[in-house]
Amino acid sequence: MTARILSGKELTATLETEMRGEAERLEAAGSPPCLAVVLVGADPASHTYVRNKIKAAERVGIASVDKFLPDSTTQKELEGVIAELNADPAVHGILCQLPLPKGLDAERITRLIDPAKDVDCFHPSNVGLLAMGTPRFLPCTPAGVLALMTRNGVAISGKHAVILGRSNIVGRPLSLLLSRKGTDATVTVCHSRTPNLKELTRQADIVVAATGMTPEWVTGDMVKEGAVVIDVGMHRVEDASKKSGFRITGDVHYESVAPKCSAITPVPGGVGPMTITMLLQNTLTAARNPA
Amino acid sequence: MTARILSGKELTATLETEMRGEAERLEAAGSPPCLAVVLVGADPASHTYVRNKIKAAERVGIASVDKFLPDSTTQKELEGVIAELNADPAVHGILCQLPLPKGLDAERITRLIDPAKDVDCFHPSNVGLLAMGTPRFLPCTPAGVLALMTRNGVAISGKHAVILGRSNIVGRPLSLLLSRKGTDATVTVCHSRTPNLKELTRQADIVVAATGMTPEWVTGDMVKEGAVVIDVGMHRVEDASKKSGFRITGDVHYESVAPKCSAITPVPGGVGPMTITMLLQNTLTAARNPA
Repeated sequence: MTARILSGKELTATLETEMRGEAERLEAAGSPPCLAVVLVGADPASHTYVRNKIKAAERVGIASVDKFLPDSTTQKELEGVIAELNADPAVHGILCQLPLPKGLDAERITRLIDPAKDVDCFHPSNVGLLAMGTPRFLPCTPAGVLALMTRNGVAISGKHAVILGRSNIVGRPLSLLLSRKGTDATVTVCHSRTPNLKELTRQADIVVAATGMTPEWVTGDMVKEGAVVIDVGMHRVEDASKKSGFRITGDVHYESVAPKCSAITPVPGGVGPMTITMLLQNTLTAARNPA
Repeated sequence: MTARILSGKELTATLETEMRGEAERLEAAGSPPCLAVVLVGADPASHTYVRNKIKAAERVGIASVDKFLPDSTTQKELEGVIAELNADPAVHGILCQLPLPKGLDAERITRLIDPAKDVDCFHPSNVGLLAMGTPRFLPCTPAGVLALMTRNGVAISGKHAVILGRSNIVGRPLSLLLSRKGTDATVTVCHSRTPNLKELTRQADIVVAATGMTPEWVTGDMVKEGAVVIDVGMHRVEDASKKSGFRITGDVHYESVAPKCSAITPVPGGVGPMTITMLLQNTLTAARNPA
């Protein structure tokens, strides 16, 4: 079987074009969409992530307000910045890049962001609305996984999806998203305490690998012929054959899994690029429904 | 195999004794636990439910504030009552009996109750905290199901639980509760769009029937030898052999299922009585952590 490649790179381009139109309409209507990006400290990885988010926002016509704060920022100062952005009617979405430097309470900050501007969908009330089947925003990475399937014509209703991992960022919210009414997958959530993983994954029509613990641990013997496999993992592994000395890989052992699949996401270029795109989608949703 | 009977009637008695001690301690500490019960209209079933809740509260030493309002109550008036109860420091828990009479917006009311007093665990932020693995309150019926297992020594960690039903009251929150860290079941949520139900239930170590649609539709051929079966259903079916002309039964066909089980809940007297007990547990939790 030749697996269909579910390319996040391609889908991102399509969605960005759609979003550009929507951003223009909002601007013309007098409500130019705007995302506030809060970044505390000098962590280079965080700066790269944030830069990529700002660049993507620019590409689709979403303005960004950058709040780059020093490592020395106190909890009180950070809370003040959030309160200011909450109160600013020109700001539709607020993103506070995690992790925060030591000594700052990320949980408290996450809960201070106005739920109507919580474009990461991390606020308990937004997670609750998702669990209740009436989401305000969709969590970014899970929404990216869903879009990669629906936009590529992968059937989900009535299928058995086995999700490996129960994190608050991916596994758990994705399970809610896939099993809600209208999407209608039968969903099994597996985790580190699941004894008979392979028995479950081999029954799955859709396997989502989202543990992020070990590179390429999902192997061909773990999936059934014709399965759809979504790889949310992202690992940098040593590879002497590469100039850089490393390559990027996922939770899935692509070489053994892909030949059995009807569809599969590559790493890189699969789920990865979708997260930012869905953040921008949420920002447009917020701009359409201001706080 | 002779199934162990997981009796909610017995467990309720044990838990009420424990709670009485806790209520006395809280009273002695100057914070007598208090539950406000809001009931709108004259629906006889609702009046029965509410009466049972108040009686159970009395038994364990939780005071109740009854707000019985006429059918003619407006949305604004009801919101005023909720606001008053939210502001009253002597009230720890607020329960608004559903369904509300036509014309009143139950969703809006549910969201107006202070999350710190939301002993039904229906507020989106409390559902979100549960989904995130850090619950403030446990949803009553799911918590009752969990207690019936843990208090009777039923192992859950590493077991495969198949939940039939994805309602916001039972199936969905129970799936979150059973699969969270520390409880560690592998959980599959099935629903009306699941094509191969029997295939899944026959693999389950724990089957929870919570569709509430059809009496006794879970039959012996659907469960494996040694399974634990929890029946959340409650139906009144005609039975000419009874004086009353009917009997109470669940989603599970007890006669064919029980002989295969290691443990099973009866209906009535299984999950049913647990819901009120867990509501009182939440009220004590609220009294320990006032708003």
